[in-house]
Amino acid sequence: MAINGYEVCDGIKWIDVLNPSQAEMQELSDQYHLNNHTVRDCMQPEHLPKYELVDDVHFLILRFYSKDPDRPIATIQELTNKIAIFYTEKFIITIHKAEAPFLSEVRTKYIDKKKCDSVTDILVKIIWNDLESFDDPVSRLSEKLDSYESEVMLKKTSPDLTQELYIIKHEASVSHKVLMLMQEPINHIEPKRGDKSAVQDMQDQYLKMLTLYSQVLDDVNNLMNLYMSLSAKRTNDVMRILTVFSVFFMPLTFIVGVYGMNFKFMPELNWRLGYPMVMIFMAIVTIIIYFWFKRKRWL
Amino acid sequence: MAINGYEVCDGIKWIDVLNPSQAEMQELSDQYHLNNHTVRDCMQPEHLPKYELVDDVHFLILRFYSKDPDRPIATIQELTNKIAIFYTEKFIITIHKAEAPFLSEVRTKYIDKKKCDSVTDILVKIIWNDLESFDDPVSRLSEKLDSYESEVMLKKTSPDLTQELYIIKHEASVSHKVLMLMQEPINHIEPKRGDKSAVQDMQDQYLKMLTLYSQVLDDVNNLMNLYMSLSAKRTNDVMRILTVFSVFFMPLTFIVGVYGMNFKFMPELNWRLGYPMVMIFMAIVTIIIYFWFKRKRWL
Amino acid sequence: MAINGYEVCDGIKWIDVLNPSQAEMQELSDQYHLNNHTVRDCMQPEHLPKYELVDDVHFLILRFYSKDPDRPIATIQELTNKIAIFYTEKFIITIHKAEAPFLSEVRTKYIDKKKCDSVTDILVKIIWNDLESFDDPVSRLSEKLDSYESEVMLKKTSPDLTQELYIIKHEASVSHKVLMLMQEPINHIEPKRGDKSAVQDMQDQYLKMLTLYSQVLDDVNNLMNLYMSLSAKRTNDVMRILTVFSVFFMPLTFIVGVYGMNFKFMPELNWRLGYPMVMIFMAIVTIIIYFWFKRKRWL
Amino acid sequence: MAINGYEVCDGIKWIDVLNPSQAEMQELSDQYHLNNHTVRDCMQPEHLPKYELVDDVHFLILRFYSKDPDRPIATIQELTNKIAIFYTEKFIITIHKAEAPFLSEVRTKYIDKKKCDSVTDILVKIIWNDLESFDDPVSRLSEKLDSYESEVMLKKTSPDLTQELYIIKHEASVSHKVLMLMQEPINHIEPKRGDKSAVQDMQDQYLKMLTLYSQVLDDVNNLMNLYMSLSAKRTNDVMRILTVFSVFFMPLTFIVGVYGMNFKFMPELNWRLGYPMVMIFMAIVTIIIYFWFKRKRWL
Amino acid sequence: MAINGYEVCDGIKWIDVLNPSQAEMQELSDQYHLNNHTVRDCMQPEHLPKYELVDDVHFLILRFYSKDPDRPIATIQELTNKIAIFYTEKFIITIHKAEAPFLSEVRTKYIDKKKCDSVTDILVKIIWNDLESFDDPVSRLSEKLDSYESEVMLKKTSPDLTQELYIIKHEASVSHKVLMLMQEPINHIEPKRGDKSAVQDMQDQYLKMLTLYSQVLDDVNNLMNLYMSLSAKRTNDVMRILTVFSVFFMPLTFIVGVYGMNFKFMPELNWRLGYPMVMIFMAIVTIIIYFWFKRKRWL
Ligand SMILES: [Mg+2]
Ligand SMILES: [Mg+2]
Ligand SMILES: [Mg+2]
Ligand SMILES: [Mg+2]
Ligand SMILES: [Mg+2]
Ligand SMILES: [Mg+2]
Ligand SMILES: [Mg+2]
Ligand SMILES: [Mg+2]
Ligand SMILES: [Mg+2]
Ligand SMILES: [Mg+2]
Ligand SMILES: [Mg+2]
Ligand SMILES: [Mg+2]
Ligand SMILES: [Mg+2]
Ligand SMILES: [Mg+2]
Ligand SMILES: [Mg+2]
Ligand SMILES: [Mg+2]
Ligand SMILES: [Mg+2]
Ligand SMILES: [Mg+2]
Ligand SMILES: [Mg+2]
Ligand SMILES: [Mg+2]
Ligand SMILES: [Mg+2]
Ligand SMILES: [Mg+2]
Ligand SMILES: [Mg+2]
Ligand SMILES: [Mg+2]
Ligand SMILES: [Mg+2]
Ligand SMILES: [Mg+2]
Ligand SMILES: [Mg+2]
Ligand SMILES: [Mg+2]
Ligand SMILES: [Mg+2]
Ligand SMILES: [Mg+2]
Ligand SMILES: [Mg+2]
Repeated sequence: MAINGYEVCDGIKWIDVLNPSQAEMQELSDQYHLNNHTVRDCMQPEHLPKYELVDDVHFLILRFYSKDPDRPIATIQELTNKIAIFYTEKFIITIHKAEAPFLSEVRTKYIDKKKCDSVTDILVKIIWNDLESFDDPVSRLSEKLDSYESEVMLKKTSPDLTQELYIIKHEASVSHKVLMLMQEPINHIEPKRGDKSAVQDMQDQYLKMLTLYSQVLDDVNNLMNLYMSLSAKRTNDVMRILTVFSVFFMPLTFIVGVYGMNFKFMPELNWRLGYPMVMIFMAIVTIIIYFWFKRKRWL
Repeated sequence: MAINGYEVCDGIKWIDVLNPSQAEMQELSDQYHLNNHTVRDCMQPEHLPKYELVDDVHFLILRFYSKDPDRPIATIQELTNKIAIFYTEKFIITIHKAEAPFLSEVRTKYIDKKKCDSVTDILVKIIWNDLESFDDPVSRLSEKLDSYESEVMLKKTSPDLTQELYIIKHEASVSHKVLMLMQEPINHIEPKRGDKSAVQDMQDQYLKMLTLYSQVLDDVNNLMNLYMSLSAKRTNDVMRILTVFSVFFMPLTFIVGVYGMNFKFMPELNWRLGYPMVMIFMAIVTIIIYFWFKRKRWL
Repeated sequence: MAINGYEVCDGIKWIDVLNPSQAEMQELSDQYHLNNHTVRDCMQPEHLPKYELVDDVHFLILRFYSKDPDRPIATIQELTNKIAIFYTEKFIITIHKAEAPFLSEVRTKYIDKKKCDSVTDILVKIIWNDLESFDDPVSRLSEKLDSYESEVMLKKTSPDLTQELYIIKHEASVSHKVLMLMQEPINHIEPKRGDKSAVQDMQDQYLKMLTLYSQVLDDVNNLMNLYMSLSAKRTNDVMRILTVFSVFFMPLTFIVGVYGMNFKFMPELNWRLGYPMVMIFMAIVTIIIYFWFKRKRWL
Repeated sequence: MAINGYEVCDGIKWIDVLNPSQAEMQELSDQYHLNNHTVRDCMQPEHLPKYELVDDVHFLILRFYSKDPDRPIATIQELTNKIAIFYTEKFIITIHKAEAPFLSEVRTKYIDKKKCDSVTDILVKIIWNDLESFDDPVSRLSEKLDSYESEVMLKKTSPDLTQELYIIKHEASVSHKVLMLMQEPINHIEPKRGDKSAVQDMQDQYLKMLTLYSQVLDDVNNLMNLYMSLSAKRTNDVMRILTVFSVFFMPLTFIVGVYGMNFKFMPELNWRLGYPMVMIFMAIVTIIIYFWFKRKRWL
Repeated sequence: MAINGYEVCDGIKWIDVLNPSQAEMQELSDQYHLNNHTVRDCMQPEHLPKYELVDDVHFLILRFYSKDPDRPIATIQELTNKIAIFYTEKFIITIHKAEAPFLSEVRTKYIDKKKCDSVTDILVKIIWNDLESFDDPVSRLSEKLDSYESEVMLKKTSPDLTQELYIIKHEASVSHKVLMLMQEPINHIEPKRGDKSAVQDMQDQYLKMLTLYSQVLDDVNNLMNLYMSLSAKRTNDVMRILTVFSVFFMPLTFIVGVYGMNFKFMPELNWRLGYPMVMIFMAIVTIIIYFWFKRKRWL
């Protein structure tokens, strides 16, 4: 365990706890009068976002983006990590099993510079930065999509992007779901006196993330559909070429086959003009087929 | 019938009834002043989840996961079993036709160890464990999906997973629907004094199950779409190879057919260089087709 | 017209009217002070479900399942029939153009046995049995679907079920819509004193029907998708076999065509080992193609 | 402009204005104290349905079905026309640029026969008849769909209905959207004293139209899907026949090609039984392929 | 920076600020007592629409259509620009990084002509004209769609519109999303005394834009589906022609191949009538196949 205490301002403390043991957590819980049930929740790394108010202590669980690099197709738990927060007007405790890099940023930018003067203040900063952890990943997804998009739009033959699109969609879908689940805890933060705008800022950040992911989801779905359409169109083209060649050559090959038969009595074979006449006949057949295709607008 | 009574704490009783007959149920109903309509409901094994408050007795029907192994594609009734619960502040009665393994777990873990001290307490444990019965099945579905996913992503040719995905989707869809129907009875549980957090725990469990099933549904739909795309792409590849071969060989086969005709007067046949000239001509045709395909980016 | 009056209990009457004429309806309307607009509505056989309270008379229109056997693909009006109900605390009037078999059941089971003692009582029984008229049809649809499902899952080649699935979907969709439209009138039934549980029973019945139809709709959609997938897969298999055969035989047929040409000066034709050498060459071509397919995992 | 005034009943006037000029509208507006903004709205033929209450004058815009016959694929503005209505308790003014045939019907059936005795009365009749203008078109769409449906269900080969279905879907979709937009103005009509049932009648009419269009939309979507399925199935059948023929004839054609080669030293050609032996060998190949197809259940 | 002040009417000022620097913005903020958080928001060009009321100053962010011509497939930020608005009853400040052409229009049409007499008045005009910026683009999309639609409906072979439809759908989808996000700030405008109708006008404009874009989205989806259907149908036709030709010519080519074999002992070759008999036999085969196709309704 690593436990750190910061003085936010007069009489207000922020306790940041990294990967506590059961016993350490019990101790902390006794000291701050935390409810047993919520303490148990805060120890489960796979817990989904939630909000609860017990015995005048607010308790919320959030998740931040922290992708397991070994799992390209991740579940909610593999893509995001849990952070549990207890707070009253006097203290705020953050508990997380894995490192949460955005917390040190909050400390540097706001605590060290003495820019915070209430628990809501620091809470809002933490949530804003938690949400910010989803920003780079969604930009990365969006840029990948844009490059695939232009590849599909410009080139005649594109490499197969089906699996790549699937991976993007999966990550966007899982992140979108996590953000949807964070709506409830976020909506429970009540602004007090002067921090209405800071709370609003954090909610703007939330809406922005949701919109970005929803835009990626829309775009990946549309691109998948375009991809399917183009693929169907290409099959169509391939088939048409096959059919055109077959329709031209099958009658001709049959005709030359007829005069390749070894019957003793085939009068045409002995005609002086047999060979040129057959050639002319085949040319006529070819021309008829050509105009038939022309009328069908295949050529 | 098997009827068991447990002392939860002072003056609070839990009656667990397994597969009662009509007469036995009547007796119980007389003893605890249960309403006739609700008693009739609690005897129907196929009843859907519901909540009702009659004559100050709360009545709810839940369903727990208990798959009939003979039916891979199960209905709500084949996938889940009913448990009916009557409760007031003084007693709780659970009635079920089939064995409900999670009830004995509740007894061992909470009743025997005297950890419960109100009806809501025990009720919440029962519901939590009822919901828990859906946890292993959804993990199993999820793991199957993950293994199919990596099979599809890695191998060139995959075995046909269409039917397997269909079965997974069907079970996830039915379980998801049962859970949706359980929302109403679960939302009717009102926390009292000290058990707010326990009720919240149970609702977290509910949200977790719903999220897990919804994630399986999303994933199976996405994987089905990926599967369809890859299958369309493969048809495309097959068609292209067929067409490429046909376009190369049909003209050549026609040309050799021409010189296989038995006309007496075919000057080329007597040319010294007839054979090599035809071979060169065919090589030229082949090269032209090759560059045509090259320009079309098919080769 | 057929008009029947039943004594529900002291001072409460149920008037059941079958296919009244305009004049007869007018008479009834005068006697019971029914509003003109509602009387006009109750005469329209195609009217959709609705609820209205005019001049202290409750008026509702329901529809019950009564399929026109000549129309496999039926509209709301061809699949269901209208029943109009007027009621106050003192009387209940049911009006229907076609026979409503479930009404005689209500009479036999509840009126004749004196089991009803209020208008809400009898009203709830009528609605319950109206909804029950949708139960056998949905079971029949569900069973058909189950048999199609196992056919698709087990057999290699299945008969074409597309049209059958379409007919099932259509009927389920129309019934589901009728049930959705009946939600409003059903929600307007207010329980009084002792019949809260009877009303709840009827609402359970409603939810059950809705769930059953929604399950059929989900299942038929899934099965249609499975069907499409399997059909696409089968096209794929067919194409692959065609392509494999073509790729093997087109080069070989070309080679034998070459040595079928009648040029005078083809040195190979006079070689002693010409024939076996060509045969060996073709074997080599075949083996190369075989390994190419092997590497592509098509064989 | 054509302006007509009708006496609805004592002291209540209905002014019907056809295609007024800006100046004429100004005059009317001065006389009845109409708000400038609403007057500007009522002059825009493309305005969407809306409701507004300004200075105690109710203002609503509706649209009625009036298809431009030159545009089979119409927008909201090409499919429907605007009618603007101003009303207080004392007068009602209807303004429309194009002829609204249903207004003369309202006049004949209700005003001339003195059947109306309040502004709400006449307003409700106008809306009812406006909605009625959508009834014949939706029946026409529905009948067309039914005939296409039976064509698809019965015949082996159907003519191409894709474009026809598209046109039906488009019109149903646009009408459905117009009706959805009319929900707000329609819900703002408040019944007074005795006209509650008339208002309800008009709302039934609204629900009926919405249901009819939604049924057409459902049906056309289902039929389109069925159409796609059948088309995919037919491609499948075509492919299978092509493949079966190719697989039978490609090996045979190769074999006869082998013995069509002109090598000097081909011992088989000189065997007495060479010809019948090859024929028997080809028969055996055919039988093997036949059983292979049989096992694959393609024959 | 360019800063312009206009006198709206007695004591009411409109300050329009183009591309302010951080310092300039700070100055303005001090002068009008603007909240720091909102000032920071108003400087972010990529901010999404929002509404906020801080310290009695209303703050809203809107976006107007201003497409980056270099990006055919644009994100929200590339398709639209931000405009931030602060207002109280005494002043209104508009801040935008890029030129907003509709603002000069508002000035010319309303301010210069002294048509405004309250802040709400001028605010409503600005929003109306902001929304109007989406009108020409949606008409352009709609017209393009109409021309593609008639191309698809009329011509036999159409050029490939897949990518064009994708681009239209993308822009419509992004604009629709921006408009959806503007719903919240627009709904926060509260009409005062006499400007209820002006506010309603602006909301009509909003609904109109939303409906237009939603119509484009519906139409483009339908057209994409039609396109897919027609493409599938065309593949079907191509396949059928290929199959018909193959089925006719493969047996015939085999037969002539048989009599092209060079066996010494083939009695038929020496028959006088061998050749005509084979020709007649092939004619019979052709006729049989013809009737088989006839029965299958392929010809
Ligand atoms: Mg997903
Ligand atoms: Mg998701
Ligand atoms: Mg979105
Ligand atoms: Mg979206
Ligand atoms: Mg989205
Ligand atoms: Mg987008
Ligand atoms: Mg879809
Ligand atoms: Mg299902
Ligand atoms: Mg479901
Ligand atoms: Mg979900
Ligand atoms: Mg989901
Ligand atoms: Mg879901
Ligand atoms: Mg997922
Ligand atoms: Mg339907
Ligand atoms: Mg339906
Ligand atoms: Mg459902
Ligand atoms: Mg469903
Ligand atoms: Mg459903
Ligand atoms: Mg289901
Ligand atoms: Mg449409
Ligand atoms: Mg529409
Ligand atoms: Mg509908
Ligand atoms: Mg529907
Ligand atoms: Mg609909
Ligand atoms: Mg329908
Ligand atoms: Mg998009
Ligand atoms: Mg969108
Ligand atoms: Mg829409
Ligand atoms: Mg829409
Ligand atoms: Mg839309
Ligand atoms: Mg449309």
